[in-house]
Amino acid sequence: MTELNLTELEWLAVRAGINVADGHARQEPTSAQQKIISRLPDLFVQAATESEAMIDRDAQSAFLSALGQQRALTDAEVLTCYSSSVALEILGRSLLAVAARRVAMIHPTFDNIPDLLRGVGAQLVPIPEEQLVDGSARLPTGTDVLFCTTPNNPTGKVLSRDVLAYWAHVCARRGIVLGLDTSFRGFDVSAQYDHYKVLAEAGCRYVVIEDTGKLWPTLDLKVGLLVFSRHLAVPLRRVYTDILLGVSPFILLLVRQFAEDAAAGGLKELHRFVANNRALLRNHLGTAALPDPASRISVARVAVPVGSSATTMSRELRRTGVHVLPCRQFHWAAPEEGEHYIRVALGRRPEVVDEAAATIRDFLAQADRSVRR
Amino acid sequence: MTELNLTELEWLAVRAGINVADGHARQEPTSAQQKIISRLPDLFVQAATESEAMIDRDAQSAFLSALGQQRALTDAEVLTCYSSSVALEILGRSLLAVAARRVAMIHPTFDNIPDLLRGVGAQLVPIPEEQLVDGSARLPTGTDVLFCTTPNNPTGKVLSRDVLAYWAHVCARRGIVLGLDTSFRGFDVSAQYDHYKVLAEAGCRYVVIEDTGKLWPTLDLKVGLLVFSRHLAVPLRRVYTDILLGVSPFILLLVRQFAEDAAAGGLKELHRFVANNRALLRNHLGTAALPDPASRISVARVAVPVGSSATTMSRELRRTGVHVLPCRQFHWAAPEEGEHYIRVALGRRPEVVDEAAATIRDFLAQADRSVRR
Repeated sequence: MTELNLTELEWLAVRAGINVADGHARQEPTSAQQKIISRLPDLFVQAATESEAMIDRDAQSAFLSALGQQRALTDAEVLTCYSSSVALEILGRSLLAVAARRVAMIHPTFDNIPDLLRGVGAQLVPIPEEQLVDGSARLPTGTDVLFCTTPNNPTGKVLSRDVLAYWAHVCARRGIVLGLDTSFRGFDVSAQYDHYKVLAEAGCRYVVIEDTGKLWPTLDLKVGLLVFSRHLAVPLRRVYTDILLGVSPFILLLVRQFAEDAAAGGLKELHRFVANNRALLRNHLGTAALPDPASRISVARVAVPVGSSATTMSRELRRTGVHVLPCRQFHWAAPEEGEHYIRVALGRRPEVVDEAAATIRDFLAQADRSVRR
Repeated sequence: MTELNLTELEWLAVRAGINVADGHARQEPTSAQQKIISRLPDLFVQAATESEAMIDRDAQSAFLSALGQQRALTDAEVLTCYSSSVALEILGRSLLAVAARRVAMIHPTFDNIPDLLRGVGAQLVPIPEEQLVDGSARLPTGTDVLFCTTPNNPTGKVLSRDVLAYWAHVCARRGIVLGLDTSFRGFDVSAQYDHYKVLAEAGCRYVVIEDTGKLWPTLDLKVGLLVFSRHLAVPLRRVYTDILLGVSPFILLLVRQFAEDAAAGGLKELHRFVANNRALLRNHLGTAALPDPASRISVARVAVPVGSSATTMSRELRRTGVHVLPCRQFHWAAPEEGEHYIRVALGRRPEVVDEAAATIRDFLAQADRSVRR
């Protein structure tokens, strides 16, 4: 049997038990969000009557502004997609169309990113995350694209402003397209400096995938944005129109409402919520079990005890009804490295995180006894 | 400048003027549909609390049953996608993964179907629609896939039960995968015999793309279904999970509600509505201008007058604020053949269709005067 990809594991998880596997936002809506939800019929009527172009632009504007990305609205082109993965698929297919195959790709990261790009014929070279984050990595000669997830999934590591500027200059000088997946930036203020200002100042060609889908419990009513520099010379718009005419204006209005609420305090509330859930996990497992103390994103890595592996641990936890992700598949070029960690989702009701954390604690305690025996 | 694809032309149309370009359902909701819309907040709560797997299955079941496709639910596997085009993209990428490149493709058809498949490396051979519909076509040696849109867009031509059985047997005998896009079947009862019974009896490998997106004015809250035979030996599920975990349960509940309403009389009401809009067009333009008298789908071809072309006519109409599609791009292997027709969308408020038809009538009258002069 072939190894399951991360989404297949998530698919099992959403179907049973305590699901802390997928990175979707499954917490309760806040009271402000519930107010928006109570007005859905009005949003439907509004979406049916207003200009789709305006609704699209307003949603893009509200979301990008809420996350500090003002310059995207003046400097870049934006295409609204069904999801960040559809945006990535469009990017991959567009790169294929201009034979830009050699992609230097952050390692580790969520497996569907390398899988999607390989599926359209890209040749990937892994670049260690720590060398991307500190600017020490060497990109192979002939690199067409540098692709980086920031904040990275599952580690929460962020490209700082200075290091992004460094890579943007490298890409500008060498004619490399800089690709970023910033799906988790909403959780971490250190990833909310205006990336588009940095990119514009370096003058590099870039494509950024922004995502509303990880932040809010909108039941996967979400969009992914393809944000790209003018003169990119990659046919994104053509491939985009092969796949879609546009996203539902109803979803766009909902995104706008949630983004405006985020800007008006909802984002701070979300940060507190995730921090509380992270503290619940830490209270059960101890700081030593959490290898990413600086991470602010809505998933957390947990160290696998000596003598076990992520694959075994996640299978054992699944038997007790708790679904997590093994980190093996994140380490797409060196799966064994990922056996030291599992990933726990924090975008859940606190009771769910608490129960999952207690189960994991029991597993760790038992593993500890086995080792001592 | 490169020629615009049909979706790019539709993109222009949704942004201004009288838009009878895209095939989306832009009519007013019926009173039964409005009742569903008024309950959207309840659907949101329901979607957040019930099992996603059940919601998914119930939506598939309600939709496929409403359109007469009961055997899909017992004989086939079903994957719910964001849209029919995303379903097609997944199919194309999965075929690429097993090097099934040689596709015999119906001609004409909506251009994003050949464009998507070519974009992932397929080699297309055009098969004239009339020879598919009467079963007289010859498929080239080495054909991996036969792909047919039924009812076809823009002509409304349908594969009858007997002819589908014929092609299914040909495909079974020659090891060809039979691909169908049935996005418009909801409009035409002659396309609502149980295709999956026919396919199962022939024993061929098949993939059918079903679509909720053309039928109802749900503001593009829709799904596309990938319905495929077991033992297909094409990795649809793997590519699917690279692109999505699932569709919003909120959208799935909405689809289910609309499908149940369709089964309870909504579909008949829709057929009357489209027939009335088609009659409006005919009243203005005369039967001679409408080349597809048997078509029941929500778009209609209109003949371009002698001395003009679809490209010219659609450009002239655009100047008067009426957006239609030239049929040139539907004829993906012989664009000149498509210059004889434009396509007018009928999924609009009757006033919109009436105004568009009156403008087209004036254009035809003027062209007639020019010819006589």
